[in-house]
Amino acid sequence: MSEICDIEMEGHLIDSLILTKALDKIMDMGGEFEIKEFTVGKRKDEPSHVRLTLIGKDPAHLNQILDELNALGARLVDSEDVRLEPAPSDMVVPRGFYSTTNHPTYIRLRGTWIPVDGSRMDCLIVVSGSSARCTPIHHIKKGDMVVVGTTGVKVVPPERPREKSFFGFMRNEVSSERPSVEIVRQIAEEIVATKGKGGRIAAICGPAVVHTGAAPALAQLIRDGYIDVLLSGNALAVHDIERQLFGTSLGMDMKGNVTSGGHRNHLYAISEIIASGSIENAINEGKIRGGIMYECIKKGIPFVLAGSIRDDGPLPEVITDTVKAKDAMAEALKGVDMALMMATMLHSIATGNLLPSYVKTLCVDINPATVTKLMDRGTAQAIGLVTDVGTFLPMLAEEIRKAGSGSRIQ
Amino acid sequence: MSEICDIEMEGHLIDSLILTKALDKIMDMGGEFEIKEFTVGKRKDEPSHVRLTLIGKDPAHLNQILDELNALGARLVDSEDVRLEPAPSDMVVPRGFYSTTNHPTYIRLRGTWIPVDGSRMDCLIVVSGSSARCTPIHHIKKGDMVVVGTTGVKVVPPERPREKSFFGFMRNEVSSERPSVEIVRQIAEEIVATKGKGGRIAAICGPAVVHTGAAPALAQLIRDGYIDVLLSGNALAVHDIERQLFGTSLGMDMKGNVTSGGHRNHLYAISEIIASGSIENAINEGKIRGGIMYECIKKGIPFVLAGSIRDDGPLPEVITDTVKAKDAMAEALKGVDMALMMATMLHSIATGNLLPSYVKTLCVDINPATVTKLMDRGTAQAIGLVTDVGTFLPMLAEEIRKAGSGSRIQ
Amino acid sequence: MSEICDIEMEGHLIDSLILTKALDKIMDMGGEFEIKEFTVGKRKDEPSHVRLTLIGKDPAHLNQILDELNALGARLVDSEDVRLEPAPSDMVVPRGFYSTTNHPTYIRLRGTWIPVDGSRMDCLIVVSGSSARCTPIHHIKKGDMVVVGTTGVKVVPPERPREKSFFGFMRNEVSSERPSVEIVRQIAEEIVATKGKGGRIAAICGPAVVHTGAAPALAQLIRDGYIDVLLSGNALAVHDIERQLFGTSLGMDMKGNVTSGGHRNHLYAISEIIASGSIENAINEGKIRGGIMYECIKKGIPFVLAGSIRDDGPLPEVITDTVKAKDAMAEALKGVDMALMMATMLHSIATGNLLPSYVKTLCVDINPATVTKLMDRGTAQAIGLVTDVGTFLPMLAEEIRKAGSGSRIQ
Amino acid sequence: MSEICDIEMEGHLIDSLILTKALDKIMDMGGEFEIKEFTVGKRKDEPSHVRLTLIGKDPAHLNQILDELNALGARLVDSEDVRLEPAPSDMVVPRGFYSTTNHPTYIRLRGTWIPVDGSRMDCLIVVSGSSARCTPIHHIKKGDMVVVGTTGVKVVPPERPREKSFFGFMRNEVSSERPSVEIVRQIAEEIVATKGKGGRIAAICGPAVVHTGAAPALAQLIRDGYIDVLLSGNALAVHDIERQLFGTSLGMDMKGNVTSGGHRNHLYAISEIIASGSIENAINEGKIRGGIMYECIKKGIPFVLAGSIRDDGPLPEVITDTVKAKDAMAEALKGVDMALMMATMLHSIATGNLLPSYVKTLCVDINPATVTKLMDRGTAQAIGLVTDVGTFLPMLAEEIRKAGSGSRIQ
Repeated sequence: MSEICDIEMEGHLIDSLILTKALDKIMDMGGEFEIKEFTVGKRKDEPSHVRLTLIGKDPAHLNQILDELNALGARLVDSEDVRLEPAPSDMVVPRGFYSTTNHPTYIRLRGTWIPVDGSRMDCLIVVSGSSARCTPIHHIKKGDMVVVGTTGVKVVPPERPREKSFFGFMRNEVSSERPSVEIVRQIAEEIVATKGKGGRIAAICGPAVVHTGAAPALAQLIRDGYIDVLLSGNALAVHDIERQLFGTSLGMDMKGNVTSGGHRNHLYAISEIIASGSIENAINEGKIRGGIMYECIKKGIPFVLAGSIRDDGPLPEVITDTVKAKDAMAEALKGVDMALMMATMLHSIATGNLLPSYVKTLCVDINPATVTKLMDRGTAQAIGLVTDVGTFLPMLAEEIRKAGSGSRIQ
Repeated sequence: MSEICDIEMEGHLIDSLILTKALDKIMDMGGEFEIKEFTVGKRKDEPSHVRLTLIGKDPAHLNQILDELNALGARLVDSEDVRLEPAPSDMVVPRGFYSTTNHPTYIRLRGTWIPVDGSRMDCLIVVSGSSARCTPIHHIKKGDMVVVGTTGVKVVPPERPREKSFFGFMRNEVSSERPSVEIVRQIAEEIVATKGKGGRIAAICGPAVVHTGAAPALAQLIRDGYIDVLLSGNALAVHDIERQLFGTSLGMDMKGNVTSGGHRNHLYAISEIIASGSIENAINEGKIRGGIMYECIKKGIPFVLAGSIRDDGPLPEVITDTVKAKDAMAEALKGVDMALMMATMLHSIATGNLLPSYVKTLCVDINPATVTKLMDRGTAQAIGLVTDVGTFLPMLAEEIRKAGSGSRIQ
Repeated sequence: MSEICDIEMEGHLIDSLILTKALDKIMDMGGEFEIKEFTVGKRKDEPSHVRLTLIGKDPAHLNQILDELNALGARLVDSEDVRLEPAPSDMVVPRGFYSTTNHPTYIRLRGTWIPVDGSRMDCLIVVSGSSARCTPIHHIKKGDMVVVGTTGVKVVPPERPREKSFFGFMRNEVSSERPSVEIVRQIAEEIVATKGKGGRIAAICGPAVVHTGAAPALAQLIRDGYIDVLLSGNALAVHDIERQLFGTSLGMDMKGNVTSGGHRNHLYAISEIIASGSIENAINEGKIRGGIMYECIKKGIPFVLAGSIRDDGPLPEVITDTVKAKDAMAEALKGVDMALMMATMLHSIATGNLLPSYVKTLCVDINPATVTKLMDRGTAQAIGLVTDVGTFLPMLAEEIRKAGSGSRIQ
Repeated sequence: MSEICDIEMEGHLIDSLILTKALDKIMDMGGEFEIKEFTVGKRKDEPSHVRLTLIGKDPAHLNQILDELNALGARLVDSEDVRLEPAPSDMVVPRGFYSTTNHPTYIRLRGTWIPVDGSRMDCLIVVSGSSARCTPIHHIKKGDMVVVGTTGVKVVPPERPREKSFFGFMRNEVSSERPSVEIVRQIAEEIVATKGKGGRIAAICGPAVVHTGAAPALAQLIRDGYIDVLLSGNALAVHDIERQLFGTSLGMDMKGNVTSGGHRNHLYAISEIIASGSIENAINEGKIRGGIMYECIKKGIPFVLAGSIRDDGPLPEVITDTVKAKDAMAEALKGVDMALMMATMLHSIATGNLLPSYVKTLCVDINPATVTKLMDRGTAQAIGLVTDVGTFLPMLAEEIRKAGSGSRIQ
């Protein structure tokens, strides 16, 4: 009354916790195992290899366990090609579809292992000709050939980096009790190093970046070439423009005084941009002469302003359709090496859903819940920094200036 | 080198703090005043009346002060008609437009005070014929006659209720140190009393309502007729349907175990509904036999599911355009007497922006920041309850059952 | 079936909200009032005067209302001397004792109004000869003459400052959405100004000041003469000393790495001090050459290290008896003009209980709950700053250096 | 230029993550290793055994690594007896002392492995005759024979329980997004099961238990025999007694209304107990007829009320010396199998420091930071439940009543 199969795993099985997690998972799910072969890398630079027999209660149970192990990098020993089934209708998925992790993934197609493009969690794999692509459910079309089951699917979870870098030593940290200034310095070094190697950095920002007075620091980072993509919403852009036009942010002046006129400046700012037709036009007309949006447009870096039901206006550049906005975000994030999430739960989690697990991800928020939720939702590679973005960003800009010797990146 | 004018205020000026706030504001803004006439209501049921001369540094300064006082209910003594100016273009506002509060508002049009329809903060007042309407900036059309300045505009802030009701004694509270069970009982009584008087109640909910196991309690409240409108997003509906179809919520079963298959059930749930064409069809086909969305549709109560960039799918009923979603929310909220906001910062603040200040508003969240931000954004009438929606809602449903003697409202 | 009396209030009754709160309170408590006489200060620099008849249901009810009004500054019209009763036993209070506010308080003794020394909340007033003193319950001795009832007691709540100072414009704020760097600058100016006027500043600190890397900044402020009193506990002192001796804080090095040896350095630090006999001896022996405690002792400023059940050791200077520690804190706080509470809920609330309401109080914490609770417990004058002490303190030290032109205060 | 030694580990090395953590730690610290022998438990019920050569840069480096590995359960292959050194003075520790974990620990003394009594973190091991004891630094006396180094010391970290119990499946969780009611039910079952097996349960409580209206539920649990020890402070006891005497808690009545008299009831409550001489006397005199303290005393269960600098009074039973209070807590916790920490950061962390790692520890708080800090400070076995104690405790008492079939435990 049981079903068995052989699986194998290889790589740094021990030090990256992978074997442990796999055996743990089998036992938690009520399965059993026998280790058939286990070659341990005797030194840290040698990979290990394990082959084990997995025992489930019945075929369904075995498949459930295989599903979970697959996400950890295990594969069936006698690997066959992936199995494909057509989507019965637009946005309707075949039974037993393979749901992606955010790790690099390969499928065996006609005897050959090919990479799956666009690693991203909670998608389907659609095969077309000899290529395969992570595809969100809303892009599934009737007849798309979708991978089902775990047969012929292999994922490669990231190994724990041994280099003594910031992202190496801090793993899954969400503590406010760290030496803040020193950590800002280390992040600055990471950013300068990433840019030095030609990497791309995305800033994902909430409106508190402007409220807390950090807008000039972010504008400077963009101007100096450290930010390659900006993802945000209507509020950040309006506050940034309001600040340029009236010196206020949601009616509060730059000293923290709530000024007369209150929310009206916010609406005026929107109206001015609409009168010009776009933020870009308003800049060309000389209405706006600085700030975050100004630097983005002058520098020509891509930005996505995604709509939300809290928006006033919104500005012409805002993508009000959330499905289109998400697609635009995914497009803008292509090739990004580092993601700096600052003071936004909504955009951080939405962006986390779109990023492969090898992107260095830093989440800065004064509310520890933002970081916890980001990780709970699958962005396990994120490092949380519980601090005040209003002091963090100016310090970061200053440390980057020092670390980068002030040299602008071209 | 100064500019003066006379203003008057009347009502319960003293006990509702209004006069104090007005004089405070004048002094904070650097203005001066002389009290010309002051008739104090000698007993608590008599209104007071005050007339004072306001002194500003120059006309602009005086106008800034008048703007602020107007929001507190002051009006110029020799009231003239409102001043109107046409909007120069779609979504472009005339200089000096009047920005609304969320209080009931009146304008003097051709010598008569008329009410402004659709009280809601941060809007413009558009006059058409003999009626006036609060209009958000995105609905302003070229040529709309928009109120500018404060002349001929009168607002009526709510007086502090003296009845010994829940909403009377708790004002602007954001404490977690209150007797929880007792407070749940009082809220239950308010809900039963509101429904007894034929009032309408809106539930504004985040997906944590399902994660924390409170979905059956909310479904019961809807079935028993205590909820008249549901505002939420894709996530709540998918989790609710996933729970009905698979007994899980984002892959976690109802005991709190993370189950195999993880996020796949979430995508299956979406796929099943898309295959049926809509949630309603899926119910009619018998796919879904209970839960929050089931009860809404069976009971015929209006619901709005607003899109967000975090959504998978989304479900067919979700309004993905955020501007349209906001309009649908405003429409659904018409005539609502009480708003129960539960476990959602995004929808709570968005809804708060659409509600007049006389709607009894309760915001339940485990994170005190949600309540603080809601109030910071202008929904000053909200009462915060820092508690766990997963224990709050089942207790509330039970107390309502007791308070309502189990009698279903028809 | 009712009881009446006449009361009067004077001062800036309107703009400081006092009259409003008084009438509000009467109505909330089910009392009634008639305003007999009301002279309004016509301009902002003129005081107002009101005389009203208060109506309660019975003598007990009237007394309850008088109790509350007294705390707002009201007094009976035909003032009599205070009534005194002897304490029946040590720490046992006479029925109906007067419980103090944290506002300056006067009593009428043999026809003369005399000030009560040592304003502090939740104490009793003990009269001895012709002087009166706020006395905590644990210092009440058998036979002490204790003020009972509100007759002959007058309190003077602080008026809202109109100067455009930091403590003037921010009242009861607990928001993380303020321009952080600008606010740090304003606080720096306040500190420099306070010291310029010969004021005394107390720092109340939790151990996170050391963990977050802010210890050198605090040490510098002490060395430069900006801090006059330090209140803290065993943990801060041990972490500070551990950092000096081993370069770690609770086993974490100054780069944020958790080092080998872990908690052992913490115990070694304690052991080293105990071997020397005291922190002071260890400094004299040259074991410790810098840090917070070093600067306190070198500068000769008083510090209190209060014991807690979380302590290891503790160090010899720690006062392990909490009653004695509280008395030592009260003593050290005498004459303090400003209190900087940083990263500690326990010490902030304990200190708040000991401070008169006119002390400028700033509470810096990354957790908004600390500030909220501090105010809920009666320290209503506190301004909350939700930020990261690890970035706040270094910035503050730098801004003070600029604002003070680097000139050390002698 | 390197130093080597052989170590071995045995047990469920793989599925309990222990081997992985050990190799990870070696590499993180810059050491190297070669696996000499590795016998894998082929099935889940077979233990594994590993023997590896550890390579450090020099003796000091090797010792640092051994320190860390020891805490994970590794021991030197050719085990020798522990090394002992006398304490040079009271509270002064010998160089290189062994700092304890909270896991069960054994030492090799004259060729025999003997258990170390009183497992508790951050202590020293003192050997006396043929027994050994975890001893906090403040109890170290001159001449005590203290274990130094890791030679001859073995710890046994807990294995991950495979039974499907509440404490088995939830590990290190700090999420507010769990099905609350269901989780309360599971905790109730654990409590009933623990008592059924003759286990002892400690309740560690903050005053919010009374403020939030949960005192009657806790009193009922004590009365019904589910609580064996109560650890708390002055505030909880005073609020509980104030509630019994006056129906208020810190001046707030049981409906959540702030009542007249405010803080005075709090002081009266203290005064009444002091007049009686003790809480017990007050109960015997009939002053107090119910509540938490009443049930503790009537049931004869031990309680410790530890002093804090926030206390008023305090009550006669309060231990104001924090060192003595901590000792009393350690004594009361002996033999405890489960710890329920509710709404207190101070007492939770202090108690966590005193508990061995095998005690089932649940920490209930509305603030996720309490749970995070408890784990950061070493109580890694704690499970966090982010919920409202005011709804949690009444629900728990009700579920225990059901689960325990109402049968009182004798």
